[in-house]
Amino acid sequence: MQKRYLMAPGPVAVAPDILAKMAEPIIHHRSPQFSAVLTRVREDLKYLFQTGNDVLILASSGTGGMEASVVNFLSPGDRAIVVRGGKFGERWTELCETYGIEAVNCDVPWGNPVAPEDVARALEANPTAKAVFVQAHETSTGVKHPVRELGELVRGRPETLLIVDAISALGVYELPADAWGLDVVVTGSQKALSLPPGLALVSVSQKAWVMAEKAKLPRYYFNFLKERKAMEKQTTAFTPAVSLIMGLAEVLRQIREKGLPALHAHYRRLAEGTRAGVAAMGLELYPKVPSEAITVIQAPAGINGQDVVKILRDEYGITIAGGQAQAKGKIFRISHMGHLNEWDMLVALAAVERALSRLGGKTEQGRGVAAAQAYFARPAGN
Amino acid sequence: MQKRYLMAPGPVAVAPDILAKMAEPIIHHRSPQFSAVLTRVREDLKYLFQTGNDVLILASSGTGGMEASVVNFLSPGDRAIVVRGGKFGERWTELCETYGIEAVNCDVPWGNPVAPEDVARALEANPTAKAVFVQAHETSTGVKHPVRELGELVRGRPETLLIVDAISALGVYELPADAWGLDVVVTGSQKALSLPPGLALVSVSQKAWVMAEKAKLPRYYFNFLKERKAMEKQTTAFTPAVSLIMGLAEVLRQIREKGLPALHAHYRRLAEGTRAGVAAMGLELYPKVPSEAITVIQAPAGINGQDVVKILRDEYGITIAGGQAQAKGKIFRISHMGHLNEWDMLVALAAVERALSRLGGKTEQGRGVAAAQAYFARPAGN
Repeated sequence: MQKRYLMAPGPVAVAPDILAKMAEPIIHHRSPQFSAVLTRVREDLKYLFQTGNDVLILASSGTGGMEASVVNFLSPGDRAIVVRGGKFGERWTELCETYGIEAVNCDVPWGNPVAPEDVARALEANPTAKAVFVQAHETSTGVKHPVRELGELVRGRPETLLIVDAISALGVYELPADAWGLDVVVTGSQKALSLPPGLALVSVSQKAWVMAEKAKLPRYYFNFLKERKAMEKQTTAFTPAVSLIMGLAEVLRQIREKGLPALHAHYRRLAEGTRAGVAAMGLELYPKVPSEAITVIQAPAGINGQDVVKILRDEYGITIAGGQAQAKGKIFRISHMGHLNEWDMLVALAAVERALSRLGGKTEQGRGVAAAQAYFARPAGN
Repeated sequence: MQKRYLMAPGPVAVAPDILAKMAEPIIHHRSPQFSAVLTRVREDLKYLFQTGNDVLILASSGTGGMEASVVNFLSPGDRAIVVRGGKFGERWTELCETYGIEAVNCDVPWGNPVAPEDVARALEANPTAKAVFVQAHETSTGVKHPVRELGELVRGRPETLLIVDAISALGVYELPADAWGLDVVVTGSQKALSLPPGLALVSVSQKAWVMAEKAKLPRYYFNFLKERKAMEKQTTAFTPAVSLIMGLAEVLRQIREKGLPALHAHYRRLAEGTRAGVAAMGLELYPKVPSEAITVIQAPAGINGQDVVKILRDEYGITIAGGQAQAKGKIFRISHMGHLNEWDMLVALAAVERALSRLGGKTEQGRGVAAAQAYFARPAGN
């Protein structure tokens, strides 16, 4: 009968009204009723991605969207530059290797953003590179990469695309696809959009469409040219995940109503308030340039981050995330994404204080919570 | 305010209790709670597929499952035999061509089942064929292919797999994967399981796993070897469609409770009752060997099947399906799959009678409905 909290970086908590929307009777995907929903969703997605270009909807998780962003634009033997500074950067490399793309890895120590100069150098050394793959926000470390600056580097190169995994970034903070020259932007339903997992969303620039027409890698389920054709008929190439799209339609309607800046401000506020608490507890953030999607905290000396996660989950009913691979044990991660608010952040901080103390930390109980409370209690806009 | 009915062959109507289940708070996919669900679902899927082998769960629609069943078992330049007698048979060929597999097409006129002798001949002529691709039920025509007989042909060949698209067949009628030697069986959530679209389920025989280890086609999101590894840890390789899996867990629990034979009997009953009505209306079925998943009816001379579909949809709020490609206009299709019962079949028949009359047909109103009613009113088991 324990009350449960989901504060991991995806899947995230979904609002009850959205859950109810997805529980409405299923409608047929080839019907004027669903076509009308799809047409509206596609317009609203352009607003979310800040683009005039097409945004495609795939029935898959985010990794499917990443795979689609490789196979639709490249040909066997192509070269690509990969920014690799975490688990998801490594995923770009693995995808490239799987599909016979020569990955030139721009390796970055975990927790650090890539230096644009390093990518510039890689581009100079590899002028035929067909793409630069990067995370806007590397979820495994909490770091923000400077995709705006990378957009500047790639913009003048007609044969090179900037392909951005924005799965845990889009909707969290300003990331305007067109203004920043982000050719391909991938996101998923189960992050900032506060939906269940099962949808990938991908924006495609005009430059990327030209490349898609020339790309020779095999693809069928994830074939964007097929999807574009289907879009012209207000439908999808294959059976879409109807119930999730009904939820997406409602979420996007709400985002348009409040405005994207309000969504960004919401995440900024949760992140800053949480970090005020973290600082007051004498803890350090792990990423050098933290995103507003999650707060990634270094476990204090002598304490295993996994134990913090475990106590929260097993004793308090609160799901946060630990570290992965080389960061395992060293960090724990509190998500701001999902149907969460400032009271939830107080809960998370209170639970962390309690757990650290249980693990022998020297945390004064209430210090972090009070600092966050002081932040959140300030009048908005100050 | 019109009451709506969904009687198309996927997406299908979903029961309110299942919709409610999927509307429960989202749980994290890397949690003991979700692992427990996954473990139970995987056991229940073995029951559904009638197999001792692994059944994989993919976040994709059925076509993703079909693609996965090509790329996981074959290598570039391989040859495969494809039974092609409808839109979904064509999809196997397209998938093969996309991935550089030489498709030897066993072409079958639409509405006809393949003759096992033709496949036997193709196998003799192409002894190196690595796979036979077939539909258990070709949804576009309503025909059942003799997969049991094909199983006999392939069973003795250690280097050839029988790969079966059972998307609109599994759960509808007897299709025991192990007993019939079906190496790979694909289904989707939005058919006989009466769930929303977004999940593909694939069983893999031991023989198929051996092929998977040797297969050279590139795959990442749909990599079964990765999925198998994740299964050992009671998890999935990538973020699963959590809410749909919660619905799947409940559906499978109900199926185990009632028993698979009861599910098959349910579909047989709906199909037979509907067909009693169709016959009484003087209409003909389109497929030579009809499946129990859908009733596919030939439009009477002078009447366009699409008009029947349109009247039902726009005037009566009832979604059935028309024909595709070469069958367009010639047929209309009433699904028995989904949360439907015998009263719904009376509704469908009544609506068809009404529409045919509106279109100038000579249907006596009530004749089809009465015949179906007579069928359904018989004591069960007679």
